[in-house]
Amino acid sequence: MGFPGVSIQTPVAATRRTKGQRTRDAILGVAVERAVRVGVGGLTLGDLATELGMSKSGLYAHFGSIEALQVAVLDHAGLNFAERVIVPALGRPRGERRLRALADAWILTCRDGEPNGCLFVKSSTEFDGRPGPIRDRLQALHLQFHDSLTRVVGGGVTTGEFDPGLDVDRFAHDWYALMLGFYHAHRLLDDPLAEARARTSLDRLVDAARPPGPTPSGSPAGNGTDDPAGDQA
Amino acid sequence: MGFPGVSIQTPVAATRRTKGQRTRDAILGVAVERAVRVGVGGLTLGDLATELGMSKSGLYAHFGSIEALQVAVLDHAGLNFAERVIVPALGRPRGERRLRALADAWILTCRDGEPNGCLFVKSSTEFDGRPGPIRDRLQALHLQFHDSLTRVVGGGVTTGEFDPGLDVDRFAHDWYALMLGFYHAHRLLDDPLAEARARTSLDRLVDAARPPGPTPSGSPAGNGTDDPAGDQA
Repeated sequence: MGFPGVSIQTPVAATRRTKGQRTRDAILGVAVERAVRVGVGGLTLGDLATELGMSKSGLYAHFGSIEALQVAVLDHAGLNFAERVIVPALGRPRGERRLRALADAWILTCRDGEPNGCLFVKSSTEFDGRPGPIRDRLQALHLQFHDSLTRVVGGGVTTGEFDPGLDVDRFAHDWYALMLGFYHAHRLLDDPLAEARARTSLDRLVDAARPPGPTPSGSPAGNGTDDPAGDQA
Repeated sequence: MGFPGVSIQTPVAATRRTKGQRTRDAILGVAVERAVRVGVGGLTLGDLATELGMSKSGLYAHFGSIEALQVAVLDHAGLNFAERVIVPALGRPRGERRLRALADAWILTCRDGEPNGCLFVKSSTEFDGRPGPIRDRLQALHLQFHDSLTRVVGGGVTTGEFDPGLDVDRFAHDWYALMLGFYHAHRLLDDPLAEARARTSLDRLVDAARPPGPTPSGSPAGNGTDDPAGDQA
């Protein structure tokens, strides 16, 4: 999996972190919450120092510049997303079940875990037209996540659940697009059907990826759509 | 078509506008451009007055409050989008050709017409968690656009190009999701394949909407996919 920090940022590793690293993590936790509300570009060392009850110079000592702090905020949010969405999915068998577990955790995080919204969705439209280190890091994090998603999809080709000729890159882009659509319908449109519709559309994307054969959709157990996963996704 | 202003804001109507209305339109044109850069929430009467070279009180006289101006900015952007994307499509025959014309104009606007991005995409993630008049108007504009898109899709059912049992609401949501995905891949990821991939995914959505029959995809002329439209979409 290509997502940053997943393999090293385990709970065990966390306990070994120095006091300075733990302080830095605590600062970033608050900064991520603030960035979701005011935008990554709206963060200032002064406001953040006030919110944290620490001196601006103390904050500066940890990051060196507001831009370095903004980049660190994106990395921290990426780590949170990986821990909430990607790591749990990796505990499921490779293939369609892992992909569906990823969808479940993703939808759950989007629906219940982020009352103020997703920093990655927000900062993408905030920074897509603003060249510089923040946009560069955001793009890199998105590409790493796309790579992770592509690998999960490719796992379904390996298990034989998906067509060997599947364009996994396009599948992963379509998947992400459907999640963006869900985010929009759920958060802005207040659409009570948003989740059910998104799950139907993801199902159809999965069905279209199956190898040609006698069980094109709604197939019985044996190709990864065991009942519990089917109920949830 | 449900999109605001399409039926009344014709060039003829524009020439009949009073001087006050024309000044208001000119202010809103500048304000929309500014809002794309700083966010609708980042607009202030002071900054805008400076950019326009007019007094803050003069600007205030036109709108009454910053919030009223922000709402007017959204309406103005909605009108621009309708004129660029929806109205041209309405000149095409009902059904698949109109839907494809809508996609062409939409992709073109996204790709070439909005160097700083789309105000509706940006302000959706900016305001989805901030209740109030701005979010209300933004939601209403999105729902009106969704209604317009649904009608265009429904036209394909009427012409017989799409399955009578098609879930046009979900089709329209999926279509919008794919456009959000294109926006993301084109603007943040700098992906040179973004447009071609989005067009392929839109094609597949259209193919999946066709009535069951002998020509499920890549069909010859006669069902709305005439060659020029097929080449472009």
